[in-house]
Amino acid sequence: MILIEVFVYAGIIAASISGTLVGIQKKLDLFGVVFLAACTALGGGLIRDIILGQSVPNVFVKPQYFIVSTIISILTWLFYQRTLQFQTTLILTDAIGLGVFTAVGAYSAIDHGLKGAFLIVSMGLITGIGGGIMRDVFAREIPLVFQKEIYAIAAIVGSVSILLTSEIFSKLSSLYICFVITTLIRIIAVRYKVNFPIRNVNDKSFNME
Amino acid sequence: MILIEVFVYAGIIAASISGTLVGIQKKLDLFGVVFLAACTALGGGLIRDIILGQSVPNVFVKPQYFIVSTIISILTWLFYQRTLQFQTTLILTDAIGLGVFTAVGAYSAIDHGLKGAFLIVSMGLITGIGGGIMRDVFAREIPLVFQKEIYAIAAIVGSVSILLTSEIFSKLSSLYICFVITTLIRIIAVRYKVNFPIRNVNDKSFNME
Amino acid sequence: MILIEVFVYAGIIAASISGTLVGIQKKLDLFGVVFLAACTALGGGLIRDIILGQSVPNVFVKPQYFIVSTIISILTWLFYQRTLQFQTTLILTDAIGLGVFTAVGAYSAIDHGLKGAFLIVSMGLITGIGGGIMRDVFAREIPLVFQKEIYAIAAIVGSVSILLTSEIFSKLSSLYICFVITTLIRIIAVRYKVNFPIRNVNDKSFNME
Repeated sequence: MILIEVFVYAGIIAASISGTLVGIQKKLDLFGVVFLAACTALGGGLIRDIILGQSVPNVFVKPQYFIVSTIISILTWLFYQRTLQFQTTLILTDAIGLGVFTAVGAYSAIDHGLKGAFLIVSMGLITGIGGGIMRDVFAREIPLVFQKEIYAIAAIVGSVSILLTSEIFSKLSSLYICFVITTLIRIIAVRYKVNFPIRNVNDKSFNME
Repeated sequence: MILIEVFVYAGIIAASISGTLVGIQKKLDLFGVVFLAACTALGGGLIRDIILGQSVPNVFVKPQYFIVSTIISILTWLFYQRTLQFQTTLILTDAIGLGVFTAVGAYSAIDHGLKGAFLIVSMGLITGIGGGIMRDVFAREIPLVFQKEIYAIAAIVGSVSILLTSEIFSKLSSLYICFVITTLIRIIAVRYKVNFPIRNVNDKSFNME
Repeated sequence: MILIEVFVYAGIIAASISGTLVGIQKKLDLFGVVFLAACTALGGGLIRDIILGQSVPNVFVKPQYFIVSTIISILTWLFYQRTLQFQTTLILTDAIGLGVFTAVGAYSAIDHGLKGAFLIVSMGLITGIGGGIMRDVFAREIPLVFQKEIYAIAAIVGSVSILLTSEIFSKLSSLYICFVITTLIRIIAVRYKVNFPIRNVNDKSFNME
C-alpha cells in the first residue's frame, strides 16, 4: 500500500496549502494559519474517526501527518506571493486531495467491516469534504463546498464506485478506481465550469421562525 | 411504537424545510441546500449519538431518514414560492419537530439505561436544538436558538417532564407527554411572542482579551 | 487533589465570564448567554472526551460544573457594567483558566494511560483552547486564538512541560508545573504585548477554487 501513502501525502499537502492561503487572507497569525492548515488537511479524517468511534482518532496517532502539514503551511506562508502563481498546480493538487481523502475514507469504512452502502458512501464524502468545511467554519465563511461547483458530487460518485467495484476487484484496486474517478470528475468540473443550480430568490424577506 | 415514528418523520420534514429555506436564502447550490436540510433534520441526533459514544450513529444506519429529508428538500426547492405561503403550517410543523426530537433524545438516553437527571435533560435539549444550531453555524449565522423566543426552554421543560413521569407511567407514555409539553410551550411562545430578556449594552467597546 | 479542583473552578468561572461578555455584546437572549458561557467553560473538556471516546463525557456526569457556570453567567449578566471595570482581574482569571484546562487536559490523557507525546500535547492544547473556539464559532467570530497573542503557544509549551516532568516528579507535581508555566507565559504575553507574526497581503483577490 505504498502508492496510496504517497497520494495521502499529496492530499495533505494540497489541503494544507489551501488552509494556509485562507488563513493568510483572513489575517490570522502564524499559529492560526498553521492550525487552519492542519484542520483542512486532517479534519475530514478526524470527523470520520469520531463518527466511527475510533477510540483515538488516527491523526493523533500519526504525528507525521501533522508535521508534514505544518512544514508545508510554513513554507506557503514564507513564499506566499510565489504560491499564488501556481493556480493550475493548486487546482490539480486540490482535486488529488479530494480524490485521496474520499477513497481512503470509503476504503477504511469497508476495511473496518462496516456494512451498508449509505454508511460507506457517507464516510467517503465526510472524509473528502470534512476538512474544507472545518476550514471554512473557522474562517467564518459559508463552506465553499455548499456553494459552487461539482465538489461533493465527485466524492459521492467516487464513493459509490468503490462500493460497486470492491466486490469484483481487490479492495485495493477499488480504492484506486475511486481515487481516479473522484479526481477526474473534480478536474472536469473545474475545467468546464460545471455548476449545480442555485435558486434565484427575490429578496422580499420572509420569516419562518 | 408506530405513532412516534410518524412524528419522527414529521420532525424530519419540518427541519428539512427549515434547512432548505435558509440554504436558498444563502444562495447555496442544490447540493448545499440538500446537505443543509439533512444537517438540520439529522444533526441533533448525530451529535447526541457521538456524545453517547454510539459506535455508528443512528442516522448512518437508517438511510430512510436521509432519503425523506432529501426528497422534502428538493420539493421545497422546486416549489419555493409556494412554501412561503404556508407560514402557519411551517411554524406548527417546526414546533412538532422540536417536540419530537427532544422527546426521542431524552427517551433514548433513558432507554440506554443512562442515569442522572442532568445527562438526560441535556440529551433531550441537544437532540432538540442541535440540528438548528448546525444549520446556523454552516449558514454563518449566530444560532437562532440563542437569540430569541422560548425555544430551548421548551425543550428543557419537556425533558424534565419525561424524567418526572417516566417512573410513574410507562416509558412510552412519558415520551408522548414530553412531546406534547415541548410542542405546546413552543407554540404558545410563538403565538404570544414570549421572549427571553436581552441585556442592553451601550456600545462603548471593551476588550476582555 | 483538592487544590487542583479549586483551580478548575477558577477556570470555569473565568471562561463563563468571558462567554457571557461575548454573548451580551452579540445581543443573545439570557438563555443564549448562559449556553455560550457553558460552551466556553466546558467545551474544551467535552471535545477532548469525545476525541478520547469517553463514552459519556465528564461534563454531563458532573452537573456541578454546569451549575457554577450558570450562576456565574447570570451574575455577570446582572452586574454587567461592574464586570467591565475589572479588566486586570479578568485577564488574570482568563490566564488561570487557560493554565488549568491545559494542565487537566494533558494530565487526564496521561492518566488514561495514553502514549505518544503528540497525542498528549494535543489533548492539553485542545482542552485549553477548545472552549474559546466553540464560543467564537457560535458567536460568528473567527476564533480569537487564531488571531492574536501567545495563547495557544502557552498551552503547547505547558503541555510539553507536563510530558517532560511527569517521568521525573509525581504526576500531580507535573500537573502543577504545567499549570504555572502555561499561566505565566500567557500573562507575560499579554503584559508585554507579545504577538505572533501576521502576513501582510496586498488585497488583490485570488481564487484557489
